[in-house]
Order: sequence, then C-alpha cells, then structure tokens
Amino acid sequence: MSLLRKDPIVGRWTIIATERARRPAAFVDPQSTSTDQKSCSYCQDIHAPGIFDFQGVKVFNSSTPILDNSKPFARQGHGLYDVCHSYGNHEIVVETPLHIANMAELPLEAIKAVFQTYASRMKTHRKNPFIEYVLAYKNYGVAAGSRNIGHARSQIMAVPVLPMRVKDKISGAQKHFEHHERCLFCDMISQELKSKERVVVENEHFVVITPFASRFPFETWVLPKKHHCDFADGIEGYEDSLASIMKDILLRFKIGLNDPAYNYMIQNSPVKDIATFKENYHWHIEVMPRLTRVAGFERGTGFYICPIPPEMTAAFLREVNINA
Amino acid sequence: MSLLRKDPIVGRWTIIATERARRPAAFVDPQSTSTDQKSCSYCQDIHAPGIFDFQGVKVFNSSTPILDNSKPFARQGHGLYDVCHSYGNHEIVVETPLHIANMAELPLEAIKAVFQTYASRMKTHRKNPFIEYVLAYKNYGVAAGSRNIGHARSQIMAVPVLPMRVKDKISGAQKHFEHHERCLFCDMISQELKSKERVVVENEHFVVITPFASRFPFETWVLPKKHHCDFADGIEGYEDSLASIMKDILLRFKIGLNDPAYNYMIQNSPVKDIATFKENYHWHIEVMPRLTRVAGFERGTGFYICPIPPEMTAAFLREVNINA
Repeated sequence: MSLLRKDPIVGRWTIIATERARRPAAFVDPQSTSTDQKSCSYCQDIHAPGIFDFQGVKVFNSSTPILDNSKPFARQGHGLYDVCHSYGNHEIVVETPLHIANMAELPLEAIKAVFQTYASRMKTHRKNPFIEYVLAYKNYGVAAGSRNIGHARSQIMAVPVLPMRVKDKISGAQKHFEHHERCLFCDMISQELKSKERVVVENEHFVVITPFASRFPFETWVLPKKHHCDFADGIEGYEDSLASIMKDILLRFKIGLNDPAYNYMIQNSPVKDIATFKENYHWHIEVMPRLTRVAGFERGTGFYICPIPPEMTAAFLREVNINA
Repeated sequence: MSLLRKDPIVGRWTIIATERARRPAAFVDPQSTSTDQKSCSYCQDIHAPGIFDFQGVKVFNSSTPILDNSKPFARQGHGLYDVCHSYGNHEIVVETPLHIANMAELPLEAIKAVFQTYASRMKTHRKNPFIEYVLAYKNYGVAAGSRNIGHARSQIMAVPVLPMRVKDKISGAQKHFEHHERCLFCDMISQELKSKERVVVENEHFVVITPFASRFPFETWVLPKKHHCDFADGIEGYEDSLASIMKDILLRFKIGLNDPAYNYMIQNSPVKDIATFKENYHWHIEVMPRLTRVAGFERGTGFYICPIPPEMTAAFLREVNINA
C-alpha cells in the first residue's frame, strides 16, 4: 500500500509508492516496453470482465495501483508532517479492443465512448464521501510518462484530497467572479473568439485555444462554449461534438508534429459542494504534446519559459491538413 | 525581446520567447549538441572579458537572452490578460576554464568559487529596484533541460515578478511561523536529524535530506543548519562547507546513479523587504536527478507520484562510496 504525504511548506500532497516501489537500481536504466499485438496484455485484458464496460471501452482496476480503498481514510501526524495511506481508486481505461496506440486514430464513436466512460466513472466515484477529486487523464508515449506503449488507454484517479493545481485554479476563478460577477473562463473564451489569434479550431460547442500565458510549446486547452462547472454532467448532449474536436486536435498534433508524445487532463471542479463552483468554475481539458524538457528554472520557480509564442503555435496547428 | 505574460487563472508568470523564438518545425526533431573541447564555445568564451570574473569562474550575458533590461519595466493590460516585456537579467556562469561537464568533478575550490559568484551576482541584482527575485540554477544533461552539454555552467535570472513556487513556499513558512513562532525549516531539520532515516549526509554546517513528501525519485534538499533567510549573506564563512557538501551529493548521484542528468536550484528569499523574511524563511538548495518523466497526472493536478520512498533513496545514497 502506498502513502499520501503532505509537503509541510507548500501543502502539496504526494503519493509515495512503498510496497510496490521500484528498487533504486531500476531508475538507473529505465526501460519502456513497446508491445506488438501478440504480446499486448491489453488485447488480452479486454476480454476479461472489467469493473465497467461500455461500447468497447473497458475499465479495470490498475494491476499496480497507487491508490486503494480497502482501508478507511485516516490522516495522521508524524511530527511536523501529515501522512495517510493512499486511499482512493486507480483505474485503467482500455479505450478499444483494437491494438491501436494513439486515440487520434480511433473512430469518433470510440472516442465518444471513452469520454462517456470518464463521465460515468466520475459520477460513481463522487458518491464516495471520502473522495474529493476525480482526475481522468492520458499519457501517450514515453516522453509523456507512459512506460508501455502500443494500446490506447487512459487512467482515472479518485483521490481523498484536493490537488494543489486544482485549488489554485479554483481560487483564481473565484476571485474573478467575486470582482466581476462573471465566469473567468467565459470571459477568456469571449476574448479569444473575438481576437482569433490563439484559436486553433472550434465547432458549435467547443473551442481549442493555445493559452495566452502557455507554459509549454503547443499547449492547448479545449473549452466548452457553454458554461458548466462539471465535466460529467456538462457533456450531456455534447458528446459527439467533444469527440470530434478531441480527434481534430489530436490529429493536428500527430500530423503536424510527427506523432509526438502527449498528455491530456480533464480539469474538472471538485466533487464536493458542487454548488459553490456552479457559477465560477468552468470545466476544460488541457492537451499538450511533450516536445521539451522542463529545466531547473521551471522546477525552481514554477515560472515557465515557453520557447515559442502561442499565436505562432495556433497558426501552425490551424494550417495542419488533417484530411490529408 | 521576449514577453512576460500572466496566466489569469492561477497568476503564474510565463516568459514567452518572441523574436528569438524557435520555429514550430524545430520542436519536431530537437537536437542537442555535445561538444568536444576543440569546438566548445565555452572553452573559447572563458578568455573573453565577462561581466564578472572570480577565480576561474566567468559570468557572461546570455547570447540568447530571454530577459533584458534595456527597456524600462512596465506592465500593461491586454483585455483580461497582463503582459510586459521580459525585463531582467539572464546570465551564464561558466564554472571552469577546463572542459569538464559535471560540477561533481570540479575541485572544491572551483565549486566554492561558483557559489561565491552566485552570491555576488545576487547582491548586485538586488540593488535594482525593478528586480523582485534572483534565481541561480543548473541544468546538467539533456534530460535536465540542457541543450548543449560538455562544459560545466549554470545560469542566473533576475526577474521583475515573484515566481509562483517562491510565493507558495514563503506563504507556507509564514503560516508556520505565525502559529509556532519558529522557523518551519529549522523544525524540519531538527526532526530529520533526530530520525536520521531521510538524512543522506551532513557536515558541521549543512545537511542533505530526501524530503518527506518528495515529488521525484532521489530528490534531495541541502539545508544550512544555522537559520538564515538569505543565501548571499548566509553563506559567508560557510563557503568551504557548502562546496564540500555539494560535491559530496553530486558525486553520490554520479557514482550511484550512473551520471544522471540533474538540476539544482537555490531557493532563496525574495530580494525586497528582506526583513519580512528574516525569521520565517530559510534558504536551501533543491538538488534532483532527472530519472523519470512527469506524466499527465502530475501536470494536471500538481499532485505528484514518487515511485520510491525517500527513506529508500536516502539509504541508497548514504551507501554510495564516493571515494572509490
């Protein structure tokens, strides 16, 4: 079982692997595995009973979970420090029975089913009173933190504490709302749609922008045009539109940037006291290729250097011909 | 000239390269250069007049600066957003006339001179009323964000805004001080020295620990045992001791982890209103090898998964024979 430990200085929680920890020597020469269809465990797993099964998408508990809910959640002091066992759920979403690596190549119906699966799992996990946040995200490729490449999948984590970056986003959005009585994200969308210079692509319900103060080259955010604080309820009726814009941006990455590693993370509101966030938070998805390494400056300061302006990456991505 | 842009949601500043920006295609297949002594520009530069010269260490303005102080600092609004030209100083510290890549291999006297150089440059930059923070840091190796490897050097950035991570650390330290009337870092050091399980090495004036809630495998912090908020003044009289413990930990990485890429970042107090930080902030250095990739979960939440407990990495590093 892993541990949740809190940094006493900045208040950040870290999950520390213990029993399943990798040995020190495993870091010296880490190996990634690229599997062909024959040896792919996901091609086999997809026929096993999962904990959730929806239109070809299957959800399994992680075979090497870093969270588990077999013991009740209880914080403890340890001198100055805070620690608890890493309560929660750690699930693997196998996105397709086909041995396809990149979600960009899945049919629209399959992409739609993946996002509907996230929504369904979120609705399940938020019934657990010990869960504070549910994150759905994808690591595609070694540079994005995936160790096994070859079969499209993503992960869901249900955690008992509010992650730091979520806290920061919420607090910024709330400050803006208090001052203006308007949603900060709605204001951003309106400014971006007017200027167009950072808009990569839009459809009736969603817009993809490269954010004004991008941290990373080619960072993009997918934002729903209609205000909603919650992904799980908010996508209802817009699933086709979301699948279509996700496939579009992932294809632009694949074709324009030579199949780069990428991550996406659904940036949802916390699961508790959702009424508090209803007006001031606006769910969105961060999607970013992993083309550069974060250096000491960024790690030391939380202050990023983006080596290319977002206006230039938006223009580049707009020009990619995804129908080629 | 680059731009400083502020994220309107979390308040993070990003430096956006503009005129010197890399073209989009440059990200598709980035190249690092490893230079031999003959073609090493630093071996040549070291004989040119620098802006600071101290016992074999030479400081130059970056030839591709992302900050410059030729224009006055002025913030501007841009609709919702904040922007200003990226005022400040961006300096390269060439650490030795010798063509040696890893600081771990420099003689103690040279390492001492590098840290004295940081202190001196900090004292210079903080006289500029537009500068809020000075960061001294090192990227060693491609995985640590260095694009040219072969000759030991580090960087100094003097910036006109307070970086987010610094703000977070200060605010945590201040809260602890308000509550306990004691320095949080002094409390941590005392708890760590008592338990020993996360202590890698110590000498009379410094201790190296693997932090309780480590974000990264083999993350270490070098902490001065005597309380001082400021690196530049605080190292006076302890320079030999600091050089010795820095060489020690860098050798443990090099020998124990097969010469990994690493970063270190001096975590200093802000340069203004230093009296405010005198009692509650405690300078230190974060030193960390780059052995894993940060995945989507970390990027999406600011919530880290450390795949090995810090007690295990401390034990591993303690056992490394650096005199072999």
